[in-house]
Amino acid sequence: MNAFGKLFRVTIIGESHGPAVGVIVDGVPPGLPLSADDFQEDIERRKGGMQKGTTPRKEDDFPLFQTGLFNGHCTGAPLTIMFENKNTRSGDYEKQRAVPRPGHADFVAHQKFGGFEDFRGGGHFSGRLTVGLVAAGVVAKKILSSLSIRATILEIGGVADVEAGLQKAIDAKDSIGGIVECRVEGLPIGWGEPFFDSVESVISHAVFAIPAVRGVEFGTGFRAAKMFGIEHNDAIEDQSGKTRTNHAGGVVGGITNGNELVFRIAIKPTSSTPKEQLTLNWETGEQETFSVKGRHDLCIALRVPVVLEAVTAIALADLMMQTRPNVKQ
Amino acid sequence: MNAFGKLFRVTIIGESHGPAVGVIVDGVPPGLPLSADDFQEDIERRKGGMQKGTTPRKEDDFPLFQTGLFNGHCTGAPLTIMFENKNTRSGDYEKQRAVPRPGHADFVAHQKFGGFEDFRGGGHFSGRLTVGLVAAGVVAKKILSSLSIRATILEIGGVADVEAGLQKAIDAKDSIGGIVECRVEGLPIGWGEPFFDSVESVISHAVFAIPAVRGVEFGTGFRAAKMFGIEHNDAIEDQSGKTRTNHAGGVVGGITNGNELVFRIAIKPTSSTPKEQLTLNWETGEQETFSVKGRHDLCIALRVPVVLEAVTAIALADLMMQTRPNVKQ
Amino acid sequence: MNAFGKLFRVTIIGESHGPAVGVIVDGVPPGLPLSADDFQEDIERRKGGMQKGTTPRKEDDFPLFQTGLFNGHCTGAPLTIMFENKNTRSGDYEKQRAVPRPGHADFVAHQKFGGFEDFRGGGHFSGRLTVGLVAAGVVAKKILSSLSIRATILEIGGVADVEAGLQKAIDAKDSIGGIVECRVEGLPIGWGEPFFDSVESVISHAVFAIPAVRGVEFGTGFRAAKMFGIEHNDAIEDQSGKTRTNHAGGVVGGITNGNELVFRIAIKPTSSTPKEQLTLNWETGEQETFSVKGRHDLCIALRVPVVLEAVTAIALADLMMQTRPNVKQ
Amino acid sequence: MNAFGKLFRVTIIGESHGPAVGVIVDGVPPGLPLSADDFQEDIERRKGGMQKGTTPRKEDDFPLFQTGLFNGHCTGAPLTIMFENKNTRSGDYEKQRAVPRPGHADFVAHQKFGGFEDFRGGGHFSGRLTVGLVAAGVVAKKILSSLSIRATILEIGGVADVEAGLQKAIDAKDSIGGIVECRVEGLPIGWGEPFFDSVESVISHAVFAIPAVRGVEFGTGFRAAKMFGIEHNDAIEDQSGKTRTNHAGGVVGGITNGNELVFRIAIKPTSSTPKEQLTLNWETGEQETFSVKGRHDLCIALRVPVVLEAVTAIALADLMMQTRPNVKQ
Repeated sequence: MNAFGKLFRVTIIGESHGPAVGVIVDGVPPGLPLSADDFQEDIERRKGGMQKGTTPRKEDDFPLFQTGLFNGHCTGAPLTIMFENKNTRSGDYEKQRAVPRPGHADFVAHQKFGGFEDFRGGGHFSGRLTVGLVAAGVVAKKILSSLSIRATILEIGGVADVEAGLQKAIDAKDSIGGIVECRVEGLPIGWGEPFFDSVESVISHAVFAIPAVRGVEFGTGFRAAKMFGIEHNDAIEDQSGKTRTNHAGGVVGGITNGNELVFRIAIKPTSSTPKEQLTLNWETGEQETFSVKGRHDLCIALRVPVVLEAVTAIALADLMMQTRPNVKQ
Repeated sequence: MNAFGKLFRVTIIGESHGPAVGVIVDGVPPGLPLSADDFQEDIERRKGGMQKGTTPRKEDDFPLFQTGLFNGHCTGAPLTIMFENKNTRSGDYEKQRAVPRPGHADFVAHQKFGGFEDFRGGGHFSGRLTVGLVAAGVVAKKILSSLSIRATILEIGGVADVEAGLQKAIDAKDSIGGIVECRVEGLPIGWGEPFFDSVESVISHAVFAIPAVRGVEFGTGFRAAKMFGIEHNDAIEDQSGKTRTNHAGGVVGGITNGNELVFRIAIKPTSSTPKEQLTLNWETGEQETFSVKGRHDLCIALRVPVVLEAVTAIALADLMMQTRPNVKQ
Repeated sequence: MNAFGKLFRVTIIGESHGPAVGVIVDGVPPGLPLSADDFQEDIERRKGGMQKGTTPRKEDDFPLFQTGLFNGHCTGAPLTIMFENKNTRSGDYEKQRAVPRPGHADFVAHQKFGGFEDFRGGGHFSGRLTVGLVAAGVVAKKILSSLSIRATILEIGGVADVEAGLQKAIDAKDSIGGIVECRVEGLPIGWGEPFFDSVESVISHAVFAIPAVRGVEFGTGFRAAKMFGIEHNDAIEDQSGKTRTNHAGGVVGGITNGNELVFRIAIKPTSSTPKEQLTLNWETGEQETFSVKGRHDLCIALRVPVVLEAVTAIALADLMMQTRPNVKQ
Repeated sequence: MNAFGKLFRVTIIGESHGPAVGVIVDGVPPGLPLSADDFQEDIERRKGGMQKGTTPRKEDDFPLFQTGLFNGHCTGAPLTIMFENKNTRSGDYEKQRAVPRPGHADFVAHQKFGGFEDFRGGGHFSGRLTVGLVAAGVVAKKILSSLSIRATILEIGGVADVEAGLQKAIDAKDSIGGIVECRVEGLPIGWGEPFFDSVESVISHAVFAIPAVRGVEFGTGFRAAKMFGIEHNDAIEDQSGKTRTNHAGGVVGGITNGNELVFRIAIKPTSSTPKEQLTLNWETGEQETFSVKGRHDLCIALRVPVVLEAVTAIALADLMMQTRPNVKQ
């Protein structure tokens, strides 16, 4: 399924070079005010067009509300937001088809979908579809207006100075990876469930929907594996659950504990690199060299923060809706 | 929900000091042979009773088949496996109740469940419930008999020499964390879906059901964030999809690519440490010192491999059942 | 799946002649008081042992709380209630195995589960499993304590005088069918969703989980097919939504409208009839006569009302939990 | 949720007077050939424009494939089919808003969605949305090409002669109800599950998504409630499971038994009748008379068969995909 959520359900649709991409959001509370303006900032952030290291492809994304919006408010019926695909150049793809791009889904898509996949520009696997995630994220953030959800780039190519990290890639004429951190303030105690629907389970499920994510860690994360118990445990300080330290990253036993939710994700280098690479030609059965033509992001991590905020908001909105008040309350 | 899976659905039940813990597995193929003997090895591995650094609590776990098994085969109806709780000492818990153990779910459980949680020994949050996960894993592994699923400890306390890592904890009179790696051989191409039901999404969802997991990474994982594209991309070598390197860890575009599935998880140090710690007494509203009495694992990571194999098998069994042959095939 | 519900999820388990049958209820609000006494009335009603026309099998059902209950209250963790199977006589089944009982699931179970089904006494298909439904219904009714949910027998064998209907069956030495009606008072406006999760969709889904149900109709039901619009439409009388008539049975557009919910189900005659019948011997491939030995209900409809209340309560509890307040409220 | 299905998942979207209505189908097998021509017959049947008693509104529905189709075949990615709304007249609705049409969802929608519902022409509750159901049904039927799924009108206004039934309505200047029957040939043994996911549960769930359905019955249905066991039981005749009679309607124990699936639904008279009716003005709090202006179906049952085939095919496609071969096979 191309969908996520039980009560706040997000389905992403479309292909890179089809008529449109988009998103259906079912479970939006009726009365939520919504307009195209609400989307502008996050859609701009996703484009990253102004930044060094991101592709200049001008997508001119404008949300087209097809269903679920009336008189400036969500109606409670499914909300459908489409984005037309313009500015696509399909011509080059057919002849390159039998030569799957390394790091891309071309080969597995061909196998899984038996050759019927739309292969133009990555088709349904294209990063283009994250515009739908971002749009759903805008809606989720409005529902979660009492929370602050903010993702930032921690490092590029192993360097905390992002400019310097990018320069490494530019110098190497290669793409490069990075780390993005997300922090959520304002969460109450009690979202999430023990075991299978833990906050970490639900968020990581959503996070790995972002192409190029290779890892996720909460709180101190992998560093916790090197720590002693006395170092890692967070001492609760008061009835609100606030802890002196926050090694847990805001989740204990799968449940939010009233502290800031903190997690990080690892983004691999953009698969499309200017470097010459080897791959298989599945028609000839021979390996051949491959080299990417055209515009591509040197560092896809630069465009990830807004997408990470989006999927985090989507996951949290669904968790919130599933959290019922207990009898005592 | 305390359940996972669409077609192979696992529900874990029970509390540490209730009558029993267990698991219900719905969607087991009829005819699968199953007996108590099948469980012995993995249940023993979970106990870890023989290893330095694991608790000597003798649980004597024996699977009681309540439903879904007949004449030595699964019937296709829900399979219920229970494990009696013996060897429990409940007396101490009531008086310590208002003093939540740091790193444990005591505080959040109290808040979320309004004071009605079974607080004895961690109740429903207890690591004791992983015996149900292990049991479901045994069933899943039998279904996936063509795969090899193997988890091993990579390091303890930052040291690849596991004995040495444990000794650090023993010397420090403290608990310690570790890293566990899982490798799956034999996967065909094509399991998983783009975006929300990616292999990484589904596996990480299951993996964070294991208490104490703080991070998960696939293939090169967090190291990918420091790499160039030319380093990370795996060159496809032949029609089977085999790649020269396996930085992707067996998943591209959310889909298995025919290579070994490789991922690692970070395990925090056991929350119960012999060290004296600070916590809140929620009745007095004051912080007070807390120190764990009794038997506890110094390094819970030692007991994780079999649980990690189990949730991996559970996730893969569900993915397999959801994967339909395409029209062409 | 042998489960129902998104937020209030009920899984039924067991076989007629296995160790036990039971139910797991996930999503019970923490703090709900619960004891064995709460179950007594409905379990007695289900047995129907005192009534003419119901089997005298003494099941002596006593709810065994395995998980999720602590100090007399539900904890919020999964609630597991088991009922031991006593008083079973398994000996006769093996030799009759190849002769499927007409009207029972013996033949389809054998085909679907490839011969691995537990065939003793209907196995997992047995009406015995409705004790688990009734138990879950007890919990659901307690959650829905502001509602009155009441099912009654409308007619037996086409006769409103139930005694007379039963006498027809006794005279004919045959089993007989009946109609059961369920009425729910106290529902607010707004439960249910347009189209796929309409109240009728969700309730009928649950209702057909009851063995022997052959039809369901809401409000005037099938009689509506003979009516004119002016006859069927219910005029709204006041702001509470109360209508002068209630042909709709309390649901319009899939949504509760504030009036009494009314629906009826048709129950076929008990498949086990004392009459001699033809069936196939699947070993010989020949048809042969078959005649039921032993104790059986002449009219299973007599035992249905409490089960119908149960599945109705289960469906409504899940609908309630899915209904979110709108922004305006 | 406005969605149905686990592996073949259908989401319907849109409002009567919004830009478009449509459907998203996730889980379509890649390689399924599909073109606009495939939809023409069923879309025409749904319009019913040529029949006496159906509205002449010319909708000119043409399927717009937005996603999931490439080179004439489904790709395996979500299939999105939209239908533009033309020929709508929105002007009249605002001033009539506080006067809910009897039998329609106007009042409950207003309450449930807090006044934010799109109220023009029934909005999301409009029968207009069944065009999306029909479109998904076309896809489902193509997947189930080995089955014959056929719905026909059994009676109108209680009369088997449909023309005569319609004439009753025309003479009475009123709308009228009817009964529609669906028959499915070619089903194998073994689809469906015991209890909650019985064939009847799943089909009735889908069937009640059709507006105006008030009841559903399988096989002999409500007539079974008047029968003796010896009359109702179907004798199995041969190893294929074929029975001499088919009172069960092709389902025993919730599982298909290899015989024809037969069920009927009751359709209430069209809510919009030319007759003057009473309703509430929720602004004044007074009852007032109401009379429908404009074009409307006298008998919505006439348009139901193709929609019933569609939801039946949708339900069966999902059941088929959930049915796994057993180990023995």
